[in-house]
Amino acid sequence: MTDTILSSATKEVVIGFDRPFVIIGERINPTGRKLLAAEMKVGDYSRVKSDALAQIAAGAQMLDVNAGIPLADEPRILAEAIQLVQSLTDAPLSIDSSIVEALEAGLKVYKGKALVNSVTGEEDRLEIVLPLVKKYGAAVVAISNDETGISEDPDVRFEVAKKIVERAQDYGIPPCDVVVDPLVMPVGAINDAGRQVLRLITRLRTELKVNTTCGASNFSFGLPNRHGMNASFLSMAIGAGMTSAITNPLHEPEMAAVMGANVVMGADPNCSEWIRRFREPVAEGEGEGRRGGRRRRRSA
Amino acid sequence: MTDTILSSATKEVVIGFDRPFVIIGERINPTGRKLLAAEMKVGDYSRVKSDALAQIAAGAQMLDVNAGIPLADEPRILAEAIQLVQSLTDAPLSIDSSIVEALEAGLKVYKGKALVNSVTGEEDRLEIVLPLVKKYGAAVVAISNDETGISEDPDVRFEVAKKIVERAQDYGIPPCDVVVDPLVMPVGAINDAGRQVLRLITRLRTELKVNTTCGASNFSFGLPNRHGMNASFLSMAIGAGMTSAITNPLHEPEMAAVMGANVVMGADPNCSEWIRRFREPVAEGEGEGRRGGRRRRRSA
Repeated sequence: MTDTILSSATKEVVIGFDRPFVIIGERINPTGRKLLAAEMKVGDYSRVKSDALAQIAAGAQMLDVNAGIPLADEPRILAEAIQLVQSLTDAPLSIDSSIVEALEAGLKVYKGKALVNSVTGEEDRLEIVLPLVKKYGAAVVAISNDETGISEDPDVRFEVAKKIVERAQDYGIPPCDVVVDPLVMPVGAINDAGRQVLRLITRLRTELKVNTTCGASNFSFGLPNRHGMNASFLSMAIGAGMTSAITNPLHEPEMAAVMGANVVMGADPNCSEWIRRFREPVAEGEGEGRRGGRRRRRSA
Repeated sequence: MTDTILSSATKEVVIGFDRPFVIIGERINPTGRKLLAAEMKVGDYSRVKSDALAQIAAGAQMLDVNAGIPLADEPRILAEAIQLVQSLTDAPLSIDSSIVEALEAGLKVYKGKALVNSVTGEEDRLEIVLPLVKKYGAAVVAISNDETGISEDPDVRFEVAKKIVERAQDYGIPPCDVVVDPLVMPVGAINDAGRQVLRLITRLRTELKVNTTCGASNFSFGLPNRHGMNASFLSMAIGAGMTSAITNPLHEPEMAAVMGANVVMGADPNCSEWIRRFREPVAEGEGEGRRGGRRRRRSA
């Protein structure tokens, strides 16, 4: 049982074993979104606002906020975006930047316990990001690559994750506040990527006893029907022990897969979240006796 | 590595570890299908024919054939249906009946190595079904219940499966020819049904080293969006080690989940089956440059 507790000023969300899987909405990210980038750069946060509200409505329990815009004042923009999003929702946030000054600017204005996204196993990153995580009492996403890049060998990635968890402890950050990203590789390029990452997720949970997260959609890169592939992958990753993902909650197949996996894992008592989301409305003029017109028989 | 080899007169299908998951089409079954039952009873097999062809076209590698019709001559009807289906397709069949005379009538006319569906752990069933399986050189589905009924305790179900596998060996049937059905319980009634059966599937694979099958759709009984729930369950069961299912291949969500799981498990080399099924056709008047209009970016 490992619980990573994140919070806003008024609400806690727990990433943990045997708990409902936590969806961290990925949309507030100008990477590859030219319009959003241009708007954020000039201080127009209207799309940040609508993206925040839409993702929460779709079922995200947390939101990732990234302001990585070339030639822009990223620390200021990230801090402003975080303040705006915190004024709109009580969901805890993941503060996402590769620039340490931006992470610190975000942490300074953040109310609650944030998830810092991210630190890698590179020495210079460990030395600069971990003290910041400790200073602000945050948790951190640990990405399992180091100076040598991303290893295709999942055992090497496990060792990198282990190093980050140990180093975090040296800085006074407990393992429960390190959420490991095992790095999901595209299966279209690496045929064994699925089994590798499932095995790695299981090892991270049973041996290192840490929570995990990932950018799930990378798995399906280059394939047709990406949503369908992401759905299968997410269900199976949850079955293997993954406890959160940074993904797009507006995609229905992926959300249904996650909610179904919660049921399978016993993390949706009485299937109540599933039933609430998918219950068929009684059509006008139809009585209770024909709710949705479904027959009940052995094979759905 | 356990391979269960089934065959028709001209084709082999292998249920096995690290192989593509085998879908056994469940549709040729008059249980709950009044029209089909009435037709089969009077020797009209037109719907059996169309169901066989449709399931093969949808991707079933094997077909289950059941002729359980009250007050009908089940042995004759089952034998006739099997002969018809074998004349239409080279897919190996599962011969499905609770009446031993019907199983034998089906086995007598069957060309190849059939899957007998099924034997339970009940003493009288073991004594009468296993010699038949041995006599005709078939494989058998072993259902993990016995005289005491279906235990809610998965460890008890494991022991029942173990007893059937051992008893089969006494009759000269090797463990690779016993495909265990761990019994999927409805999660709407038993909240822990998912985790229980995943753990049982893993134990059956790693400890008893047998292949597994199940009636997957029972999991979602009574819930809304059954196809979505079945899809999550099937993906996760495959991740836990399940190697076949008796299910309806005409349901797209379940089939996509199974095909996605094959990719994740490394059982679809180069994702070629996935790509063949889901590749977007080039719309008329559109060039290669806008295949399906998809942008490639990090988040699908």
